Amino acid sequence: MLRLRWGVLAVCFLLSCFLAAASMQKAQTEKGEEVDKAAIESVLSAQQKAWNNGNVDAFLEGYWHSDELTFSGSSGVARGFNAVRERYKKSYPDRLAMGKLDFSGLEIRPLGTDAALVLGRWHLAREKGDAGGVFSLVFRRFPEGWRIIHDHTSVVADPASH
Amino acid sequence: MLRLRWGVLAVCFLLSCFLAAASMQKAQTEKGEEVDKAAIESVLSAQQKAWNNGNVDAFLEGYWHSDELTFSGSSGVARGFNAVRERYKKSYPDRLAMGKLDFSGLEIRPLGTDAALVLGRWHLAREKGDAGGVFSLVFRRFPEGWRIIHDHTSVVADPASH
Repeated sequence: MLRLRWGVLAVCFLLSCFLAAASMQKAQTEKGEEVDKAAIESVLSAQQKAWNNGNVDAFLEGYWHSDELTFSGSSGVARGFNAVRERYKKSYPDRLAMGKLDFSGLEIRPLGTDAALVLGRWHLAREKGDAGGVFSLVFRRFPEGWRIIHDHTSVVADPASH
Repeated sequence: MLRLRWGVLAVCFLLSCFLAAASMQKAQTEKGEEVDKAAIESVLSAQQKAWNNGNVDAFLEGYWHSDELTFSGSSGVARGFNAVRERYKKSYPDRLAMGKLDFSGLEIRPLGTDAALVLGRWHLAREKGDAGGVFSLVFRRFPEGWRIIHDHTSVVADPASH
């Protein structure tokens, strides 16, 4: 009889595991989304700060260090972290070209638990003339944190229509 | 003793359920990705066919019919299905402007089980002058099938750099 009770207890334990796992998953999804949004915002905030310190390499830390990283825009698609770095270094050779970067209007949309789409606006205040536009970023969760796996950036001529 | 065996059997059954579910999930992920890629390709193929039949409304079936649909490009962000439709109808008022559409170089990257990032090139062959460039699409799985929830499209001046 005692051994039978152990059998019943084991069944109850496993069923409890099922229910607890389901309940935890739901709670984790809700709280997790807020935590993930904050983590993604902090990646972008660190990028903005690095840029405004004139540190392109620190800015690039927000990107996936992989040959599969892609960056699309009006000059086509750059493939791989090195190509993306080259593009930045060529387009922004010095602090005069870099200017002061401001990201705004961030919209973070979760895509499942390990990816997110982020829309936003960028603006460069520069002595030689401001520039700005819109971007679409796809972030993915890695052991080291959230990183941009794809960036599609456009210059928008008329800021009013951003 | 018989009742004890039922208890043991129940434990074994539940453990088998765990293992079967884990195994099915792995197989489903692998096969599912191929099925999903084919489904996404067929949405884009239907769009291309609709466009080349001069049917913008059928082309738009590939997009999420929602106020949350977004379309980014060098004129900023259009929000909502109606705004996206307006943008297409304004930019492509007739078949002469529409030309013959060709999508190429599709890269479909799953983002979890219910979303995907799709990169590709677009080309319009037109009497009044060709146009082309690159796009980044985010697809999401809906009960009715895969739909584009975000489109970021750029014109690329030099096709060689696509």
